[in-house]
Amino acid sequence: MRRNTDIKRRSDCPLNVSLEIFGDRWTLLIVRDIMLKGRARFGELLEGGEGIASNILTDRIARLEAHDLLERHRDSSDARRFTYRLTRRGIDLAPVLYEMILWAAQHEATAAPPDEVEAMKRDRAGYLTAIHQAWTKSAM
Amino acid sequence: MRRNTDIKRRSDCPLNVSLEIFGDRWTLLIVRDIMLKGRARFGELLEGGEGIASNILTDRIARLEAHDLLERHRDSSDARRFTYRLTRRGIDLAPVLYEMILWAAQHEATAAPPDEVEAMKRDRAGYLTAIHQAWTKSAM
Repeated sequence: MRRNTDIKRRSDCPLNVSLEIFGDRWTLLIVRDIMLKGRARFGELLEGGEGIASNILTDRIARLEAHDLLERHRDSSDARRFTYRLTRRGIDLAPVLYEMILWAAQHEATAAPPDEVEAMKRDRAGYLTAIHQAWTKSAM
Repeated sequence: MRRNTDIKRRSDCPLNVSLEIFGDRWTLLIVRDIMLKGRARFGELLEGGEGIASNILTDRIARLEAHDLLERHRDSSDARRFTYRLTRRGIDLAPVLYEMILWAAQHEATAAPPDEVEAMKRDRAGYLTAIHQAWTKSAM
């Protein structure tokens, strides 16, 4: 598995570093499902709504773990299986997701209900705090 | 050239819509060079620091134009050439870039000077306003 330290980056620009870590179309969808939809198991992540292939999901989970964005735990109800939880570095992606959700909701036709978008826009801090609280709770 | 309306999306989730439009490793680097480094010509964008290939740059500029994030103008000093400017939809990506820059600056080793990162963090609104003002000025 690749470790952060092994990676030869194209540049040390912080935007480039972020893009090299999570800048592909699938990674943030997996983060979304864990962060915003409370999904935790491989099978749940496979049913994310965009039809991710099983081998891509496996690859992206491994990358997320290698970059210390995601951590794996034994499932308490079935020791042969795993659940996934975001690390602190992972939950700190919440503002990135927030801005990407808001951009599309404001500029494109999406499934986001307008009143929910308005509420998100009006109370950025509240939205981000609620995500953080749900994450803290998920450790218990 | 693809138009927005022709695209069959994997889902209408606003995060997915954003990722389908600008969720690849190169697109936001081009947006960064135009938005934050004041670059406007193809040759300048080719020298972005990450070694983008000329054919990829051509493809991503076409995609950015098709999605109405970028517009092309005749270069006033050389009518055979073009300059590129972000549209309103394009400049509205500033908060997405801001959060991605900040995430890497806080969690990874990057080239971002710590005092600049601190200033960005301390004054999010001021940073975004300055970007917007530079964009408005670039229309004159």
